[in-house]
Amino acid sequence: MALKFREAEYKDVEALVNMLFDDPLGTLREDSSKPLNSAYLTAFEAILKDNNNELIIVENNDNIMGMLQLTFIPYLTHTGSWRCLIEGVRVQSDCRGKGLGTQFFEWAIERAKQRGCNMVQLTSNKARVDALRFYQNLGFEASHEGFKLML
Amino acid sequence: MALKFREAEYKDVEALVNMLFDDPLGTLREDSSKPLNSAYLTAFEAILKDNNNELIIVENNDNIMGMLQLTFIPYLTHTGSWRCLIEGVRVQSDCRGKGLGTQFFEWAIERAKQRGCNMVQLTSNKARVDALRFYQNLGFEASHEGFKLML
Repeated sequence: MALKFREAEYKDVEALVNMLFDDPLGTLREDSSKPLNSAYLTAFEAILKDNNNELIIVENNDNIMGMLQLTFIPYLTHTGSWRCLIEGVRVQSDCRGKGLGTQFFEWAIERAKQRGCNMVQLTSNKARVDALRFYQNLGFEASHEGFKLML
Repeated sequence: MALKFREAEYKDVEALVNMLFDDPLGTLREDSSKPLNSAYLTAFEAILKDNNNELIIVENNDNIMGMLQLTFIPYLTHTGSWRCLIEGVRVQSDCRGKGLGTQFFEWAIERAKQRGCNMVQLTSNKARVDALRFYQNLGFEASHEGFKLML
């Protein structure tokens, strides 16, 4: 499978929203109506404009198979360092179990290194049991509690 | 106690590094040597330059009592939304147990609202038992595992 990794473009947003909706948690909080809710485009423009955010997609023969977002953040901690936060990880339901996620994360970790990061971090919902095992197998350590507060 | 909340400036960096070092985990990974390791200043400049990062300090009569960093991040998820990530939370050891942390977080949550965020998230090391209880008392839900991978 010849995978291509690239930053998302405007033309991809509808497919990405469809992928977010096709998920047990996403279906509860995303808007699948068409034409696309303009809030998605507004958010996408903000991501595009920010050099420290990259919305990455993986595709094969122009079929989008997965997405994730990288945020590069400078911190004083760890003797002054950059950290890469990964969020919004999704792989199309019919593309799972084929090693795609592992290749996607290897690419993302390499990208974090290129950007000078010394740590990659992410949170994963405790209900996503398969995802938790996936991250542990990749070498991530579940050293932290991940807290959320809705406003 | 008349608390003042403001963005950190260059003149504060040495005091902030001292605070990071005065911590069971920080003492293992920070550099307390003087003159200050230039990596701290480089990181601070990157924070200052980024409109989506704010390193906030709380002080009383010009005494720095605590610090935290806010990162505002746009996402497609949750129908296109901004999220506030809080990291690097520290309160001076002699200022704890007086409600300062609660006031600091109330201020930070208000700031996240001003910036249009619909969620605040953070991770806390599972070894910081008091901090975990503090966040739960503030209404944060420990719904996620927090994974880290050192590069």
